[in-house]
Amino acid sequence: MEDVQNHRDSRNVALDHAGVSDLRYPIIVLDRGHQVQHTVANVSMSVGLPEEFKGTHMSRFIEVLNEHRGELTMRTLPALLHDLRRRLHAKTARVEIVFPYFLERAAPVSGATALMDYECSFVGESVNGTDDFVLGVKVPVTSLCPCSKAISDYGAHNQRGYITIQTRGVMQPEGSNSFVWIEELVGIAEGAASAPVYPLLKRPDERFVTMQAYDRPVFVEDMVREVALSLQRDPRVAWFHVRAVNQESIHNHSAFAQIAWTRGIPTVLTDAAITTSAGEVVA
Amino acid sequence: MEDVQNHRDSRNVALDHAGVSDLRYPIIVLDRGHQVQHTVANVSMSVGLPEEFKGTHMSRFIEVLNEHRGELTMRTLPALLHDLRRRLHAKTARVEIVFPYFLERAAPVSGATALMDYECSFVGESVNGTDDFVLGVKVPVTSLCPCSKAISDYGAHNQRGYITIQTRGVMQPEGSNSFVWIEELVGIAEGAASAPVYPLLKRPDERFVTMQAYDRPVFVEDMVREVALSLQRDPRVAWFHVRAVNQESIHNHSAFAQIAWTRGIPTVLTDAAITTSAGEVVA
Amino acid sequence: MEDVQNHRDSRNVALDHAGVSDLRYPIIVLDRGHQVQHTVANVSMSVGLPEEFKGTHMSRFIEVLNEHRGELTMRTLPALLHDLRRRLHAKTARVEIVFPYFLERAAPVSGATALMDYECSFVGESVNGTDDFVLGVKVPVTSLCPCSKAISDYGAHNQRGYITIQTRGVMQPEGSNSFVWIEELVGIAEGAASAPVYPLLKRPDERFVTMQAYDRPVFVEDMVREVALSLQRDPRVAWFHVRAVNQESIHNHSAFAQIAWTRGIPTVLTDAAITTSAGEVVA
Amino acid sequence: MEDVQNHRDSRNVALDHAGVSDLRYPIIVLDRGHQVQHTVANVSMSVGLPEEFKGTHMSRFIEVLNEHRGELTMRTLPALLHDLRRRLHAKTARVEIVFPYFLERAAPVSGATALMDYECSFVGESVNGTDDFVLGVKVPVTSLCPCSKAISDYGAHNQRGYITIQTRGVMQPEGSNSFVWIEELVGIAEGAASAPVYPLLKRPDERFVTMQAYDRPVFVEDMVREVALSLQRDPRVAWFHVRAVNQESIHNHSAFAQIAWTRGIPTVLTDAAITTSAGEVVA
Repeated sequence: MEDVQNHRDSRNVALDHAGVSDLRYPIIVLDRGHQVQHTVANVSMSVGLPEEFKGTHMSRFIEVLNEHRGELTMRTLPALLHDLRRRLHAKTARVEIVFPYFLERAAPVSGATALMDYECSFVGESVNGTDDFVLGVKVPVTSLCPCSKAISDYGAHNQRGYITIQTRGVMQPEGSNSFVWIEELVGIAEGAASAPVYPLLKRPDERFVTMQAYDRPVFVEDMVREVALSLQRDPRVAWFHVRAVNQESIHNHSAFAQIAWTRGIPTVLTDAAITTSAGEVVA
Repeated sequence: MEDVQNHRDSRNVALDHAGVSDLRYPIIVLDRGHQVQHTVANVSMSVGLPEEFKGTHMSRFIEVLNEHRGELTMRTLPALLHDLRRRLHAKTARVEIVFPYFLERAAPVSGATALMDYECSFVGESVNGTDDFVLGVKVPVTSLCPCSKAISDYGAHNQRGYITIQTRGVMQPEGSNSFVWIEELVGIAEGAASAPVYPLLKRPDERFVTMQAYDRPVFVEDMVREVALSLQRDPRVAWFHVRAVNQESIHNHSAFAQIAWTRGIPTVLTDAAITTSAGEVVA
Repeated sequence: MEDVQNHRDSRNVALDHAGVSDLRYPIIVLDRGHQVQHTVANVSMSVGLPEEFKGTHMSRFIEVLNEHRGELTMRTLPALLHDLRRRLHAKTARVEIVFPYFLERAAPVSGATALMDYECSFVGESVNGTDDFVLGVKVPVTSLCPCSKAISDYGAHNQRGYITIQTRGVMQPEGSNSFVWIEELVGIAEGAASAPVYPLLKRPDERFVTMQAYDRPVFVEDMVREVALSLQRDPRVAWFHVRAVNQESIHNHSAFAQIAWTRGIPTVLTDAAITTSAGEVVA
Repeated sequence: MEDVQNHRDSRNVALDHAGVSDLRYPIIVLDRGHQVQHTVANVSMSVGLPEEFKGTHMSRFIEVLNEHRGELTMRTLPALLHDLRRRLHAKTARVEIVFPYFLERAAPVSGATALMDYECSFVGESVNGTDDFVLGVKVPVTSLCPCSKAISDYGAHNQRGYITIQTRGVMQPEGSNSFVWIEELVGIAEGAASAPVYPLLKRPDERFVTMQAYDRPVFVEDMVREVALSLQRDPRVAWFHVRAVNQESIHNHSAFAQIAWTRGIPTVLTDAAITTSAGEVVA
């Protein structure tokens, strides 16, 4: 049976990426306490296509992902990228994974617990034997407007906001990244906001977060700056991208602020934007 | 050339709807001051398919819509439905249109103006010569939580909410519906909320709406009830469906309340749900 | 601490629904082989609010869901609804759950296997002690146009389509519904299409499904009719709603067909539409 | 009244962007025949925030946009960026606009016409007096699989695909970009596909495009390469990004290919990704 993809191509155009996207797959991730967590990911996988080949073999991406479905984490991504390169005879490979991650959160006064979802992402790229990874997390928070508080006799408009952090760890001697945990990034984001967002709040908790937010007014600009300062102080972080978006309660549009920063350490992966069209864009 | 759609079907299954959906088209609507407004709609059009025909002729829906693109309003929908029935030899026809509608809004203190978008919808159905129409509008508002205000020493969580109203007018002797204007529904929704949402607010305006919201705390339940009372008092309204959703600022999920009501006047159209998959569901 | 929700309301407007929506939660469902499957759901839960109460207690919905997170299936929904009614002192309760469900599918020639996602939904409502349930599944398929095949010398346009089936089972003497399995509905939908859609196809498989689709051309109307006939013949089915949508490969809009049918058995739940705004509408 | 945004910030963190996003606004664009076209845009506007200021003045973005709403095109973007920089006392400004653009298309045999929508985007950035612009268009096409055709006795799977092209023009002596028209990019994309996609096809047209697609099978890789070759040959193009995505008719996921290319001319704008979260990502 003819292998059309394997035909010789004479147009002299090498492609940055050829692969599959918008693929939903169940995956297992590890949380900080090394517990297994089952979730469902939106996956994009691609390889660089040399100019001499007409096409890539799309079915092999699914085969490789299926073989890896036992576990998919920042620690296992290098093996997945390696397998993609080997099976598709490619010099470069890229994987983007977006998934909801759940943490049990206790309300601040009553201690009542329930699960809270955080949209997370892994982006990994392997280029000529060097790998690079970016971890992302989108943290919902409460933000209360400093301007509204300052100019009003009482009250202050507040709203749900989302702080999206993407970080790249410093490369370790043994080849791994010194990445920060999702749980740490959640904490950093919440520490930069007026108040955390919880899945379950009883009345004493609602009283607590209402006053906490009023006591800690922040603009989107403040949230981004506070996260940036925290990450710059962390020697494990080689690069980050932070974006805060407020679903303004007094408007039908959003306010946002954004920063990218690098410690000056050379990297392989230059574009950390998530392009899986079915998932929301993380950065 | 063979007309496969026209083939006789022997399965004895008549279909409620066969047609096109997820169609984007520029349309012209009229606002209350009879000014022309250009906007872009997501359109679904269908006809009932008798059991004896294999298929409907999908291209004719586009032809009919294209001929009507000069104007598409509650007043011209009957002609569109009539044309669909005639061109497709059908006893029933249905049209669903979702579109952003813009109103110039003045800030409450400074009077500064800009345009504000409201997602609106028309649903029309024609069954054996009787037509029925539903007008829908989704109004963004500010809601401030009465519980949070009552139990806290200061502040109160608030957020952007959306009140979606769908109404069916009382049938008039001349065959038209006595519908309510989009502008009136916007006013009813805003009157039921803690404060309206504006496109442009200068600092004196922000101070005004901050305190206005603190002075008028409402639950989603309150917003739905206030809208319901307003519409029940309006003799032009034969039926309504109201849904309020709050993008809770202290949670990562929404709170909602909902009511359907009828004045007891028989209607043709029993399902007012919008099913155009590209647009958001209005009710 | 004041309980504002518990205040007496004098407006005399009872609400159909008051609750939470757009909530993401990890759940466990059972597949036909009684294996446990972990997935992530978008959840909406509500109760009817009597006219005398100002508001419902939203946090209790999360508490009830959290207690049930060990398993959430058509068999455990009655207990969830019962708990909601009891904890919220309500006469009616409603739950809508949308989740991706995965089945291992073998390619038709090579037998190569991988997981395939199907968007499923449970809708349950409890009214005065009587419960009612609707199961939904959205099945991706290949459809090849009979008209295009008939009028062309070679080739025929084809595309991905989605057949969404919602069914209500006949009530059993012991109080449970005689529902059909998700796996059965997937089979019924695929049997009505030109060819199934697979997660992983090697070249001999691609050859097989290409020719299978060309040999079985169907309109959206045909797919809906074939599914309707299968379900009408099944004595377990009391009611169904079927919608087929084709992502037309020759247009930038969709073609669709739709039917609702009842065996004439009285039901509690009159509206099976999914309204969780974060999920796609199932019907 | 206190101007909190104007407070001095001591954290020494300058922000890349601070502004508004997810704003829907009616705009007027010009088509190639210099006709006026009314459409509705999703808009994001931001400025760089120096380290010494606490916040930017969000309301001014709306004021500037509102003043420009008479016309918003590649030719008027420089004035909009200039006004943003001036009114917000900023050294850099960025605008992202995504909008549906309609072209009247004639069917290939019958000549029947209707309007077809193309999602387009403008991204503009002004840095220290130098401006840079990227034009984007997402073109729906039909793609027919060369592998499926080659290995099957008859038929071939095909589907709707989207080719997204972003281009930056060569800077002209007078300071403007030598950009390519949307209409030209649509033509380049359709020429790289198996067949164009039309809004309205009568049966003779459907026969024509069915056979045209069968005669011109292409992979996503082929579509990207053909577009790349066309753009590289065009001296007006300084940079491009091309992505093709197929809604595979035999799978529930997509296949994609992608390339970025530069003629080596230095540019200001380094990131052309669209980040307006309400709109789909163009590249």
